[in-house]
Amino acid sequence: MTRRSRPPEPTVRPRIRVSRAEEILLGPGKADLLEAIRRSGRLRGAADELGMSYMRAWKLVQMLNRGFREPLVRTERGGAGHGKTTLTPMGESVLALYRTMERSSLAAIDPAWKRLKSLLAS
Amino acid sequence: MTRRSRPPEPTVRPRIRVSRAEEILLGPGKADLLEAIRRSGRLRGAADELGMSYMRAWKLVQMLNRGFREPLVRTERGGAGHGKTTLTPMGESVLALYRTMERSSLAAIDPAWKRLKSLLAS
Repeated sequence: MTRRSRPPEPTVRPRIRVSRAEEILLGPGKADLLEAIRRSGRLRGAADELGMSYMRAWKLVQMLNRGFREPLVRTERGGAGHGKTTLTPMGESVLALYRTMERSSLAAIDPAWKRLKSLLAS
Repeated sequence: MTRRSRPPEPTVRPRIRVSRAEEILLGPGKADLLEAIRRSGRLRGAADELGMSYMRAWKLVQMLNRGFREPLVRTERGGAGHGKTTLTPMGESVLALYRTMERSSLAAIDPAWKRLKSLLAS
């Protein structure tokens, strides 16, 4: 008996990019970083999860924090929670709005996507 | 009198990416190439317009043509129109569906975008 691997299904993904002039303020990568920070509670853990260096993650957090009215990410400096990194309420709001944009976009493109998909080579 | 330059307005852009496994079948760059081909009627002209090499444009066209049920782009090989490059009806349909997805996405994300925008640093 032979096993044939079926070709993988085509997918569509809206990658929402918020920018000002040449600077990208928020996009899929930064949103994933916010989510990983929320999940792991540590910047090191979030960086590892996304396969990026600690320094890269740290720089992205600085950019995120500068881009909004209040910081999105906060790191505890002392005490029992030293080094613990969490989203601020502003960070939670921004991440939620970003995911809402992704979901709204995906729902809105579905009719045209179904037609486009039918034109793809099988 | 001093002139102050106002900071540029933040913008949002949904970059719609159609892929299968690791291969990107259609995205903003390939859509722009299709549009430039339609506009200029020459692959060379389209490549120049987008600041890409002729070889790069040619490779992208090959990928596009392989990715769909019928070619999206056709080049005339002889006669008076030799070298003229145009979109096929399939190419026109695919480009139109892609632009529809972009417009639908942009309209759908507008409510969340307005809220997110109000959280950006000014």
